[in-house]
Amino acid sequence: MSRPMKMIRPAIRLLPGVAGRSEAFEITVDPLRSLGAVRTMSKVLTEQNLNPNVLKLEYAVRGPLVIRAAEIQKEIDQGASKPFKRVIRANVGDAHAMGQRPVTYFRQVIACVVLPELIEKGGYPEDVKQRATEILNAMGGKSCGAYTMSHGIELIRKRVAGYIERRDGHKANWQDICLSAGASNAIKNVLQLFIKCIDGKPTSVMIPIPQYPLYSASLAEFGLSPCRYFLNEETNWGLDISELERARDEGMKSSMVRALVIINPGNPTGQVLTRENIESIIKFAHAHKLFIFADEVYQDNVYAEGSKFFSFKKVLTEMGEPYVKEIELASFMSVSKGYMGECGLRGGWMELVNMDPVVQANLYKAISAMLCPTTLGQTAVDCVAKPPQQGEPSYDLYIKEKTAVLDSLKNRAKMIVETFNKMDGFTCNVVQGAMYAFPQFKLPPKAVEAAKAAKKTPDGYYAFKLLEETGICIIPGSGFGQRPGTYHFRTTILPQPAMLQEMLDIFQNFHKKFTAEYS
Amino acid sequence: MSRPMKMIRPAIRLLPGVAGRSEAFEITVDPLRSLGAVRTMSKVLTEQNLNPNVLKLEYAVRGPLVIRAAEIQKEIDQGASKPFKRVIRANVGDAHAMGQRPVTYFRQVIACVVLPELIEKGGYPEDVKQRATEILNAMGGKSCGAYTMSHGIELIRKRVAGYIERRDGHKANWQDICLSAGASNAIKNVLQLFIKCIDGKPTSVMIPIPQYPLYSASLAEFGLSPCRYFLNEETNWGLDISELERARDEGMKSSMVRALVIINPGNPTGQVLTRENIESIIKFAHAHKLFIFADEVYQDNVYAEGSKFFSFKKVLTEMGEPYVKEIELASFMSVSKGYMGECGLRGGWMELVNMDPVVQANLYKAISAMLCPTTLGQTAVDCVAKPPQQGEPSYDLYIKEKTAVLDSLKNRAKMIVETFNKMDGFTCNVVQGAMYAFPQFKLPPKAVEAAKAAKKTPDGYYAFKLLEETGICIIPGSGFGQRPGTYHFRTTILPQPAMLQEMLDIFQNFHKKFTAEYS
Repeated sequence: MSRPMKMIRPAIRLLPGVAGRSEAFEITVDPLRSLGAVRTMSKVLTEQNLNPNVLKLEYAVRGPLVIRAAEIQKEIDQGASKPFKRVIRANVGDAHAMGQRPVTYFRQVIACVVLPELIEKGGYPEDVKQRATEILNAMGGKSCGAYTMSHGIELIRKRVAGYIERRDGHKANWQDICLSAGASNAIKNVLQLFIKCIDGKPTSVMIPIPQYPLYSASLAEFGLSPCRYFLNEETNWGLDISELERARDEGMKSSMVRALVIINPGNPTGQVLTRENIESIIKFAHAHKLFIFADEVYQDNVYAEGSKFFSFKKVLTEMGEPYVKEIELASFMSVSKGYMGECGLRGGWMELVNMDPVVQANLYKAISAMLCPTTLGQTAVDCVAKPPQQGEPSYDLYIKEKTAVLDSLKNRAKMIVETFNKMDGFTCNVVQGAMYAFPQFKLPPKAVEAAKAAKKTPDGYYAFKLLEETGICIIPGSGFGQRPGTYHFRTTILPQPAMLQEMLDIFQNFHKKFTAEYS
Repeated sequence: MSRPMKMIRPAIRLLPGVAGRSEAFEITVDPLRSLGAVRTMSKVLTEQNLNPNVLKLEYAVRGPLVIRAAEIQKEIDQGASKPFKRVIRANVGDAHAMGQRPVTYFRQVIACVVLPELIEKGGYPEDVKQRATEILNAMGGKSCGAYTMSHGIELIRKRVAGYIERRDGHKANWQDICLSAGASNAIKNVLQLFIKCIDGKPTSVMIPIPQYPLYSASLAEFGLSPCRYFLNEETNWGLDISELERARDEGMKSSMVRALVIINPGNPTGQVLTRENIESIIKFAHAHKLFIFADEVYQDNVYAEGSKFFSFKKVLTEMGEPYVKEIELASFMSVSKGYMGECGLRGGWMELVNMDPVVQANLYKAISAMLCPTTLGQTAVDCVAKPPQQGEPSYDLYIKEKTAVLDSLKNRAKMIVETFNKMDGFTCNVVQGAMYAFPQFKLPPKAVEAAKAAKKTPDGYYAFKLLEETGICIIPGSGFGQRPGTYHFRTTILPQPAMLQEMLDIFQNFHKKFTAEYS
């Protein structure tokens, strides 16, 4: 047994960026902890023998910028003097963290499920009491402390099927609904099914660029190849079939393209697909035998005049044969977005359409080892799938709260786009839906050089400067992917109106100063 | 594009068992759904091109027996006539489902976090109100609907470090604590780091036989090899170092053995390791450069006279150099077991000891794409890590509830072992800890033949018969692994005393009848 190595733990490490789209991921090791850390042996598990896919994996939404943002907030809390009073976290779609209030009915039901004595003692409306009782009756030992079936409580799966039927006007099978701890979990569980080389070629999955980086991170983790198709910024992030064809042709040269991810409404891009566009995408998937991942977690977040959400399930059903029987689809939904914003509760679901029953049974088997999604996340799903109905005591307040959130988001979506479009060197597409703006901006050549010297992507360099000087935390476009030579960032539209106005004012000043500095 | 296939969906499929330990996994496709299912195309995703690791994966604790148990209960609920009144689910460590009551303090705190108006209005004790306030202050926007850091809320990670310090008498770094949605999630996240061939050899991980099948399932899923060491049934499921040496030597012939899983207290076997045994295991791991997975989720469940729980962290710390600085360890804990039994809330943590900081940063990066563990599971962790203290208003009730649960489990552990040992052909080791008995029993040759004819393992055949005739659901030993030619099953000790007595009576009658039938 040899233990020859003596080395100091690194204080900062740079991981290699993934070609073409990623900013470098910095890992900061707490310097205090490094002090006593002279190594006396080589470790069992090291960077050299670590799962290479984990090394490769990147998730910009919670990357080094966000870690630094948390540090800065801590410094402020501990009395450090900064040119700003607080960090504004516009990096992540986290509505409650930005001041949005929860829907009263949801929280009353969950509290009653946690502490059933509240059903009698709490003085809550009858529909709250009834709902909590129904849910408890469907739980083992009438306790949210019991495990549930791995794909979720049957009652709640049935409620989700009902929600989908009302949304689409078509039948949904509750056996094809699988509850999950948020959409991300479900997406990974389905993606994982595709890990297999076919005829010696790796499997690849078509993802949009820009994309939500869960996809690139999960593909990296699973050793699957991304087959990237570009959204068309000129047509408000439109999805061109010719670009899908180009990307697939390119992908098929070195891999087997087997699935297609669509994010609608778009994250980070905010477009809402038209019905005609969805029909064309379904035909494309059918022609090339692609399994469709429909990431529809923003289905309640549609703001623009003339835009409307159509689910892939609805459209393919109405297209009739052969699509209705042949397109394999997984559609994902979450309680984290919409008007609910209950990110922390971890609730979501997927609907599986036309999946081979043996494959589906294997999927359900694979998730069973993880026991079950959280019962309180499932309770939140129940409330979303069947909110208070007209005539029930909680209905008016529910509608009032829901409408207030969605109206306010609609105003903020407009305000943010207008502001960016007024800024020198900025262009920003209409935010038709979802929770983000993804403006393009120009960077002076000197800034690009400075970024290079600092071993950062130009937009990453800009974002770090913005954070350090103003406390505003946004995510550079390189974390989502963008056409080479263009620079973007994603900001949420979630700060409450006054804070959003403040943020946009600070942003404008920063950008003027930055541009002057590097011109 | 070719679509030549016309085929009927299979009504029942048998997946091949994994050599040496597994029962066949039956997948039953709902016959109603199969009716309209004449296929007009080959699917994109089929059994043939599915991730082969997912096909291989098995998790007996929620396998076909348990699916059948749920069906039977449903048949009873719908009025079917059976020779028993209800299914007794002794298959899974799900305390609340079997009638255990939650700890009042925990639920009061969680309810206040869900619905903060309860802090003022609910009339709860001061320590409940204070705790809920502290937790809310540590959440984004003071809402459990906000995301947290991916490794959990800092306040709660610090509380867990405090818990470990009080338990072990040694320092714990809160930065090395990572919260999770139950222990299973954390175990998989660390196991995943080992997916890499070393010098052309696959990595293998040492697991006990019998084992908790999360390990075999996750190894299969990740394409890692199990290196199986047998526990010694003769010495109350003792862990012999000579057997560890044998298993490793064997494993090294075809793989690189890089990690060692220890489950203490044991699942399904119920042994509690002595301090001396743990010291020897640590020396073995050190000599062979193995990373230790210490599955310590049953640390509060120790019943036998003279048995005491020692954490691996405590023992290696007290062994001094070189172990204290060189042994790499991940220790896992959950709120699902112990006296809490809060399985449905999905809360847990791991402590990482001596992990290479670059590896640890990569681990934290990898989990960040899954956003965060549920906030209410984290809240439960907070309560477990720092329960009411002496002098606080909730203390007496907390102690009373905790003691009642643990005392009752102790009695049931004894009662179940005594009963099995009285049964013809049964031997059952002392349940020193955890929540299960794992008796060995003899099967008549005719029963073994009948099982073969039915394409079932002999113990699986027995377990299915038991379920159909009595409604008792236990898991056959083949789901956990056992020495060839021996038969066991795992039953929980969780049914409340009266139901446990009833279950054991029914069991004895069944066994007599079964033995007579096949003799």
